[in-house]
Amino acid sequence: MIQGKQSITFEQAPYILESASIVGTKEGEGPLGKLFDMIGEEDHFGADNWEDAESSLQKDAVFLAMKKANLAATDIRYLFAGDLLGQSIASSFGLMNYQIPMFGLYGACSTCGESLGLGAMTVASGHATHVLCVTSSHFASAEKEFRFPLEYGNQRPLSASWTVTGSGAFVVSSADYVEAQKKHVRAKITGITTGKIVDYGLKDSMNMGACMAPAAADTIYQNLCDFTRKPESYDKIITGDLGYVGQTALLDLLEEKGVDISRQHMDCGIEMFDQDSQDTHAGGSGCGCAATVLSAYLLKQLEEGNWKRILFVPTGALLSKTSFNEGQTVPCIAHGVVIESV
Amino acid sequence: MIQGKQSITFEQAPYILESASIVGTKEGEGPLGKLFDMIGEEDHFGADNWEDAESSLQKDAVFLAMKKANLAATDIRYLFAGDLLGQSIASSFGLMNYQIPMFGLYGACSTCGESLGLGAMTVASGHATHVLCVTSSHFASAEKEFRFPLEYGNQRPLSASWTVTGSGAFVVSSADYVEAQKKHVRAKITGITTGKIVDYGLKDSMNMGACMAPAAADTIYQNLCDFTRKPESYDKIITGDLGYVGQTALLDLLEEKGVDISRQHMDCGIEMFDQDSQDTHAGGSGCGCAATVLSAYLLKQLEEGNWKRILFVPTGALLSKTSFNEGQTVPCIAHGVVIESV
Repeated sequence: MIQGKQSITFEQAPYILESASIVGTKEGEGPLGKLFDMIGEEDHFGADNWEDAESSLQKDAVFLAMKKANLAATDIRYLFAGDLLGQSIASSFGLMNYQIPMFGLYGACSTCGESLGLGAMTVASGHATHVLCVTSSHFASAEKEFRFPLEYGNQRPLSASWTVTGSGAFVVSSADYVEAQKKHVRAKITGITTGKIVDYGLKDSMNMGACMAPAAADTIYQNLCDFTRKPESYDKIITGDLGYVGQTALLDLLEEKGVDISRQHMDCGIEMFDQDSQDTHAGGSGCGCAATVLSAYLLKQLEEGNWKRILFVPTGALLSKTSFNEGQTVPCIAHGVVIESV
Repeated sequence: MIQGKQSITFEQAPYILESASIVGTKEGEGPLGKLFDMIGEEDHFGADNWEDAESSLQKDAVFLAMKKANLAATDIRYLFAGDLLGQSIASSFGLMNYQIPMFGLYGACSTCGESLGLGAMTVASGHATHVLCVTSSHFASAEKEFRFPLEYGNQRPLSASWTVTGSGAFVVSSADYVEAQKKHVRAKITGITTGKIVDYGLKDSMNMGACMAPAAADTIYQNLCDFTRKPESYDKIITGDLGYVGQTALLDLLEEKGVDISRQHMDCGIEMFDQDSQDTHAGGSGCGCAATVLSAYLLKQLEEGNWKRILFVPTGALLSKTSFNEGQTVPCIAHGVVIESV
């Protein structure tokens, strides 16, 4: 059901039946390390190059999510998948062997929210019983794609974020299936707020948090309006990868609109690493950041009943190396997903 | 309604309310020249660089489609948009000023089919009254992205295709709206067949037609199975940009499965240019090829009653410059859309 200006409420809320998270070595050493399903022994994951390493992350995350859900590839009607690389090659090469009809997505680091939004819409409207939403990022492939190959040894300002090496995959299933089969589920998706592009004219690709904060503020504010909710209506409002710099900007921007989310706000990029001991500067980022933290940590809190309802808002910076070199701004987008415990 | 293994039938078929096509100079000089809504005077379209030129194509195509439909940006619930460039910057920079919630897509040259598929699903399920599906490509930005900047003056083999400079935008609207308002429409979308990635191991980025033919064959074959139809059930089966080389491969591949579509087959890339006089080798290609030909030519045939039902199958090659340089294959995908006259 259409809800307000940018949102949907699902009358028959689709479920997150199962999910899986796979991360690299550095993420495994971070504060959430013990919660991930799999931690690579080294960040090549057996591949010859970084792009292939990222593909293998997606492949394994999807395999694991289907295995946990006791489903075969033929049970999955659609893949909603994306990553940060040009022409989304991590997804295409990682997922092609599954032979599942696929919708390729690009929303930069917001893609996890975009995929869950489209996946939930598809399941809720009866166009599928099960879909799989998967996203990834890899530190080394992202540095090469957006900044410099690692071999350059370039310096990073304190405002820079650290792209997470990881992939998260989510099986989204219909209420009819879950209720008929009396399945255990992780959580349910009760609504979404789809973001629009917001551009405050910032151009610093080494300060993505500040660039993305206005988009996150816009989507969160619109979500509260569309659902006539207050920040307290959520146990947590969780952005994808604003990091420390972006968090401050987000709280300020919402305060200007009379909304105080300082008690509810949490950021996957901040949760992922220990800033002091891991030298990760502003925090984690990437399509894989929000996805792996959702799978490993956020859904666990909902399952254990510590939280009842969260607003999950992955944020994306829609720049490319070309647009950056041409002196363009960094337009951003954030997609909100309302997830509730069962 | 779920139909067969990979398809959907829309019980309340959404309509293509209006559409618009904008092309570059070379396309304007081709056999379809007179049918496009707008032809640029020169291929920069007033911009400083090729990426920006492509952005302005999308911006103008969307503007024109909304104007024809007598709708404002606030009437459009979602944009489903994509292009060929890394991180889809043509779409992000072109569309941000409209402030419409956006789903960014990547399916290479198949993106027009992907966007119409997701757009139709969204409208048919009541999640929107109007959505806008838009894709683009630009010869110069695509050469720079996938091969060499134009300044190199590299030679092109006869199997190479010529990326179309153009953008097509489609307003997809609900049956309820169209019937209540007694609106004139261009056509209706009665079903879709979403493609899976098909990779025959080919590696030649200068012969995209041969690379993509197996994906087109797979989706067309599956469409016929899912809907229990024969080639004659369609007046035309129209691929996006296989070109002359790909067309031969497609007909052969389907013949091996006992399906002869030689009388129905048409290819947007072949229609776009005059091979002899325009020196375009294998034919036109790109996200903008299928989109502009659909808007300017194919929908016109349906409107005029020359055709009753077509299967529109944009095809995409999911490679990047990086995957090509790393010696990878060219995985491909094709998305089918069943479009009928009203």
